[in-house]
Amino acid sequence: MEHGRRTFASDNYAGVHPDVLRAIAAANVGHAPSYGADPVTAEADRLFRHHFGEETQAFIAFNGTGANVVGLQSMLRPFECVLTADGAHINVDECGAPERFLGSKVVGIPAPGGKLTPALLEAAATGVGDQHRVQPRVVSVSQATELGTCYSVAELSAIGAWAHGRGMLVHLDGARLSNAAASLGCGLGDLAAPAGVDVLSFGATKNGAMGAEAVVVLRPEGAVDLPFIRKQAMQLASKMRFVAAQFVALLADDLWLRNATHANAMAARLAAGVSGLPGVEVVHPVEANAVFATLPDGVTQALQADFPFYVWNEATGVVRWMASFDLTEDDVDAFVGRLTELVGG
Amino acid sequence: MEHGRRTFASDNYAGVHPDVLRAIAAANVGHAPSYGADPVTAEADRLFRHHFGEETQAFIAFNGTGANVVGLQSMLRPFECVLTADGAHINVDECGAPERFLGSKVVGIPAPGGKLTPALLEAAATGVGDQHRVQPRVVSVSQATELGTCYSVAELSAIGAWAHGRGMLVHLDGARLSNAAASLGCGLGDLAAPAGVDVLSFGATKNGAMGAEAVVVLRPEGAVDLPFIRKQAMQLASKMRFVAAQFVALLADDLWLRNATHANAMAARLAAGVSGLPGVEVVHPVEANAVFATLPDGVTQALQADFPFYVWNEATGVVRWMASFDLTEDDVDAFVGRLTELVGG
Amino acid sequence: MEHGRRTFASDNYAGVHPDVLRAIAAANVGHAPSYGADPVTAEADRLFRHHFGEETQAFIAFNGTGANVVGLQSMLRPFECVLTADGAHINVDECGAPERFLGSKVVGIPAPGGKLTPALLEAAATGVGDQHRVQPRVVSVSQATELGTCYSVAELSAIGAWAHGRGMLVHLDGARLSNAAASLGCGLGDLAAPAGVDVLSFGATKNGAMGAEAVVVLRPEGAVDLPFIRKQAMQLASKMRFVAAQFVALLADDLWLRNATHANAMAARLAAGVSGLPGVEVVHPVEANAVFATLPDGVTQALQADFPFYVWNEATGVVRWMASFDLTEDDVDAFVGRLTELVGG
Amino acid sequence: MEHGRRTFASDNYAGVHPDVLRAIAAANVGHAPSYGADPVTAEADRLFRHHFGEETQAFIAFNGTGANVVGLQSMLRPFECVLTADGAHINVDECGAPERFLGSKVVGIPAPGGKLTPALLEAAATGVGDQHRVQPRVVSVSQATELGTCYSVAELSAIGAWAHGRGMLVHLDGARLSNAAASLGCGLGDLAAPAGVDVLSFGATKNGAMGAEAVVVLRPEGAVDLPFIRKQAMQLASKMRFVAAQFVALLADDLWLRNATHANAMAARLAAGVSGLPGVEVVHPVEANAVFATLPDGVTQALQADFPFYVWNEATGVVRWMASFDLTEDDVDAFVGRLTELVGG
Repeated sequence: MEHGRRTFASDNYAGVHPDVLRAIAAANVGHAPSYGADPVTAEADRLFRHHFGEETQAFIAFNGTGANVVGLQSMLRPFECVLTADGAHINVDECGAPERFLGSKVVGIPAPGGKLTPALLEAAATGVGDQHRVQPRVVSVSQATELGTCYSVAELSAIGAWAHGRGMLVHLDGARLSNAAASLGCGLGDLAAPAGVDVLSFGATKNGAMGAEAVVVLRPEGAVDLPFIRKQAMQLASKMRFVAAQFVALLADDLWLRNATHANAMAARLAAGVSGLPGVEVVHPVEANAVFATLPDGVTQALQADFPFYVWNEATGVVRWMASFDLTEDDVDAFVGRLTELVGG
Repeated sequence: MEHGRRTFASDNYAGVHPDVLRAIAAANVGHAPSYGADPVTAEADRLFRHHFGEETQAFIAFNGTGANVVGLQSMLRPFECVLTADGAHINVDECGAPERFLGSKVVGIPAPGGKLTPALLEAAATGVGDQHRVQPRVVSVSQATELGTCYSVAELSAIGAWAHGRGMLVHLDGARLSNAAASLGCGLGDLAAPAGVDVLSFGATKNGAMGAEAVVVLRPEGAVDLPFIRKQAMQLASKMRFVAAQFVALLADDLWLRNATHANAMAARLAAGVSGLPGVEVVHPVEANAVFATLPDGVTQALQADFPFYVWNEATGVVRWMASFDLTEDDVDAFVGRLTELVGG
Repeated sequence: MEHGRRTFASDNYAGVHPDVLRAIAAANVGHAPSYGADPVTAEADRLFRHHFGEETQAFIAFNGTGANVVGLQSMLRPFECVLTADGAHINVDECGAPERFLGSKVVGIPAPGGKLTPALLEAAATGVGDQHRVQPRVVSVSQATELGTCYSVAELSAIGAWAHGRGMLVHLDGARLSNAAASLGCGLGDLAAPAGVDVLSFGATKNGAMGAEAVVVLRPEGAVDLPFIRKQAMQLASKMRFVAAQFVALLADDLWLRNATHANAMAARLAAGVSGLPGVEVVHPVEANAVFATLPDGVTQALQADFPFYVWNEATGVVRWMASFDLTEDDVDAFVGRLTELVGG
Repeated sequence: MEHGRRTFASDNYAGVHPDVLRAIAAANVGHAPSYGADPVTAEADRLFRHHFGEETQAFIAFNGTGANVVGLQSMLRPFECVLTADGAHINVDECGAPERFLGSKVVGIPAPGGKLTPALLEAAATGVGDQHRVQPRVVSVSQATELGTCYSVAELSAIGAWAHGRGMLVHLDGARLSNAAASLGCGLGDLAAPAGVDVLSFGATKNGAMGAEAVVVLRPEGAVDLPFIRKQAMQLASKMRFVAAQFVALLADDLWLRNATHANAMAARLAAGVSGLPGVEVVHPVEANAVFATLPDGVTQALQADFPFYVWNEATGVVRWMASFDLTEDDVDAFVGRLTELVGG
């Protein structure tokens, strides 16, 4: 791949937003207490409370897998299970980290468009009280989903109500929560406690940070053990100010929103551009920064030669195009142009 | 604590060396493949091989606890145990992460000066072949030790020979390996494969990086599973180039050595400065960047008021003064001056 | 439930065959070495080799869950996964013991009649070599299945060939292996190594023992760690001679076969008896000692009032009738008679 | 070893008391619900409440390791640790099962005579509230200890008060609780809730059962999760009535007490018999059914040739002679006679 060239492969291929880098450099002043007892982390904590509510306690982690596992650990005992969409990151893309660390079963539920519903959950939440069966305890939703769709606030709230009505808790994998909020036109916090979420992973990395995720606990009683859980899960940064600074950069003004809005717009532009091309079908609603599509035979490899991206499903041939915060309209148009050539549109 | 003031509390209180920050910024060029398939990580890999030998395979992790656990996992099955000094980081300072993730017992051996010997190991390696007993499999040494001492190459080699002679493996926690190499006047690699080490954690964070540790595997056959172990241990960075860049900055020229040499020199200056003060006793040989001491009654808190540091052992009152790469001679002299005042020296 | 009354609820409701009880009593002579170093266990080991092949090494465990977990542990590292039928005991009826102890993901595959095929496995064995995905390592089949069906030797061998061709291993949950062998008219060993099985759980409990299961390892190199795994999995009996005696009773002559043949015959008699009753449908082939059926509305509870049994699937209303070794033809006929009354047949 | 010959090797070498065998046979009447929903288990539960108090909930398990791990699991989260004597069974003789299943660190404390004290615990319970350190949560004592000593009720209560005063809980490994109660002349229950114990393992196996241990939970709120924990820990018996019957036999009248009293008396007779022999030293108080001694050079192997027993500590040469319920005075006298010959007493 040409050095530094922007791609549609992953929002993890993108680099760091200049403002984030500046914030990191600004945090590099002499000594500061380690492990989060520093002023930059305090400021990040204030911003988490500002966005997610005054009851919020946030715990910075290294990566999304770590944040998910730490958050789930705070909600689960090992004989309890997590109900999630079968394509969820925790179910298929974390090399079994949740099972390994939690000891708990992750139950994948086939979910159209990557979205769970109370009806799907109700059918899956069996065996309650039966000592031979893992006990349903947590519903984990992804927002935006792995398939680039979003739960509306109402959909999320319905899941929250269902879960709480059964004495269960709601975890939200928000690796792309910013994209969802931008898409839905709401605040980050509107997708949290008011929607029935108990604990969420808030991802900054894919939205312009260098490497910064957080476990955001929305009920104070859920946070008591978090420091120990995080450390035991190998997710406690020693020089934490430099991770915290990334959150400060994104959350202090609306950089999180600008980045996400732009990435979403680039995905929408791409989807619009390829819509109607012969043999090209966009297979999921484009509600965040991802476009999933099927292509005519033979086109995928030719297109990948110029624009790296991933085949999402080898069996069906569905491909994923992911828009990151730093793509330009020209990038998208060049991509659409090349695809148009290839399909003879 | 005064904003940014340099301390003797921890080498994790120090910030990032400017060259490391520059390397991070330089890596921020457009897109790059994620999860380590990028050119910066390739360059870091080359440098690891340069320093540790051509057979080396290195796997970047987030923090020292993560690197230790991942490395140990590559050497252990859960019914096998790790023999280590009782004060080792893996035994007392990682909130049980090794036991939790590995499922293995960590056996702490009382070790004068924090250093194991073949004789101490021989006495502890019992129960071999007895199905009721965990099976000794790995010796884990810290270099420099938690007490600021260093194993000589000969001492390390003797442990390696003992372990290999019993079919065991050697793990080295090198959170401060640079300080040890600087102290011993040898190369990093001299403390690795030639000394009988099979896998080590190489720490950059305490030596001027922002947050960068690596699992360095010295035998090719030991590295096959590492990618999966690292991911399952939540230690795989998505935008890895920015972690890799920190290693490149430290290893490409002799920045690692300059930083460590300076930190060691500051510790030595401090030890020399307090030596002979009434009631002050330095309790371990100062062979790296830490000084452990006992103070007259009542002095500790007064000194901490001006210069934050940690009491290492509440029972004995031993304190730890840690020198980081960015301390100045003036910093040390001011500290010694204040202590001199307090003890009436 | 009337004291001691025979039921169709479970082969675990049945008691102990008198010959098994006699063997236990006969083993109660003075002292014997503990933990399996006794002559009765040696005799059981000889019988395991007799039935399963001279390469066999068997390790007695307490229960089926324990035997499954210990056997799987000998084949798996935690980042590797088990592919199994979604209704398999290890996937749904062991309260998550495999995930908890192994740390590995158990991947449930929808399997008609409870039986896997190479085609189903091929579709599920994805992500090989991808560090984000758990790595397929073991196929676990149940023989007889949870749905009372059996794999033919040819079907089993096809799975074995598929697995070994991919560098994978085959585990067999043989909680009812005796029933399968009786049904197929083959020896126990014919369903083991020759059919491509690497490790199996051999269940005696449901076939007339008091509580006796074994991990049967069919390749010598697979057994090296078993003693430690078994102990760490809390499955090592101290007075093992009394568990071993149960295997001796069943395997020394053909008691295992007589019990299983009889149980199978009672299931067949039941299935034949209800076949054709109005509204009664047997929903799986009756190939072992279980009958699964659907009943007309309202009949299930009325029948359960006289004859305890379990509803297998609350959603579909499918019920399970399980025949144990001690049922009589009169028991079956009474049951069929009552059902006939209830459905007005 | 001569077939069936009684030894001083282990109380696990002994067989089953005839009354226990009779109770097992008596339970073998037709069908009974599995997994503990049977009348025999109900009767055992009644007896547990009779002995240990009306608040007691007991959960039958297979072996001592299983009972210990299940009980500890009900009291611990993985970042919390267990403080125990360094020679405790959970620390050295369970092949790391506690660490493996619990994920928790077991902290062994050097304890003279195998007995902890509040002072020893106070010195070890460090790091409370420090996120880098495992958090002290459970004290686990063995009664009788691994060294054949017993805690007095007052000593036990002092530990209970210390633990509860720090918000910790007390676990008791009672593999030989009957021997302790017989020695102290108190009831089983006097060593439980009134002495500050929260959860205990009650062992029947070494005292004349075939294989029967129980997790005895003394506070109702501690028992809620036990059924799931027990199943996930592979400790749930399907035909549980046959394990429960063993407890009924021992607890319904005073068989538990007669067996334990006799075993203790045989140990005392042995200790008295060897006392004063040249070069023979009994090294721990003989307060239950074990005698630990040192012998003159060369005697151990010669004595073992006639009377199998174990060397407890290879380094010190200390041997263990264990008295089981079925030893006779003649057995003891023959042993003492042979030792007398060997040492020329």
